[in-house]
Amino acid sequence: MADNVQGLEVGSVATFSKAVTQADIDSFAQVTGDTNPLHSNAEYAARTRFKAPIAHGMFGAGAISAALGTKLAPNSVVIYLAQNLRFRAPVMAGDTITATVTVTAVDVERSRVSLETKVSKQDGTDVILGDAQVMVEALG
Amino acid sequence: MADNVQGLEVGSVATFSKAVTQADIDSFAQVTGDTNPLHSNAEYAARTRFKAPIAHGMFGAGAISAALGTKLAPNSVVIYLAQNLRFRAPVMAGDTITATVTVTAVDVERSRVSLETKVSKQDGTDVILGDAQVMVEALG
Repeated sequence: MADNVQGLEVGSVATFSKAVTQADIDSFAQVTGDTNPLHSNAEYAARTRFKAPIAHGMFGAGAISAALGTKLAPNSVVIYLAQNLRFRAPVMAGDTITATVTVTAVDVERSRVSLETKVSKQDGTDVILGDAQVMVEALG
Repeated sequence: MADNVQGLEVGSVATFSKAVTQADIDSFAQVTGDTNPLHSNAEYAARTRFKAPIAHGMFGAGAISAALGTKLAPNSVVIYLAQNLRFRAPVMAGDTITATVTVTAVDVERSRVSLETKVSKQDGTDVILGDAQVMVEALG
């Protein structure tokens, strides 16, 4: 029996990196509707523990989505089933974030793949820790 | 001892709704970098189980972020600590999604609030199920 799903096996890795700008954060606020001033208003952010605007947690999670959706199996259909996110450190404009997704289990019969998912910053700080499950199918 | 964190107590609820357009989905792809064609290319999507383009799973999660960030405690600072997401049904352009976040526990000493988080569509279909943890602080 095959030990892979669309070529993915335990240990397969994909990464996606992105340099974060304030324009990106502002766009994310607009498209999601999360216009909390902590992400865009320096005066407001100065009154919080972060002292300066930070990216939305879900913005960092977008890098995981990009790694899964564009890097893991670009010739197959990758369908998101589940994602756990533990937000560990803030991201600010000027940071570069890298999402790393590593296959930890494959279920060949159900075409499902489990992954450890991590987002880190340029200095190695963990930004988001967690895990994901996706279904991976051939394009029809 | 107080049984609330910044006015939030067990049972407190907030909602955020958004009508989803293809332009939103395309913007989300650009800002996150998740340019998987399943979300924007009708010809490609027709060759998948969905038959038509679907929004990114993390786009739906953005509605949870918006409910937490703009509706739950708009006069306090809400900091994302954790989010679990189980993607249950696809969202397409033309759908209206509603995120509902309900406080299930408060930890007054650590200023932490646990919530059940749900995203549903206009017809009542569950899109995302899960739970979240946030820290809620007074603005300095």
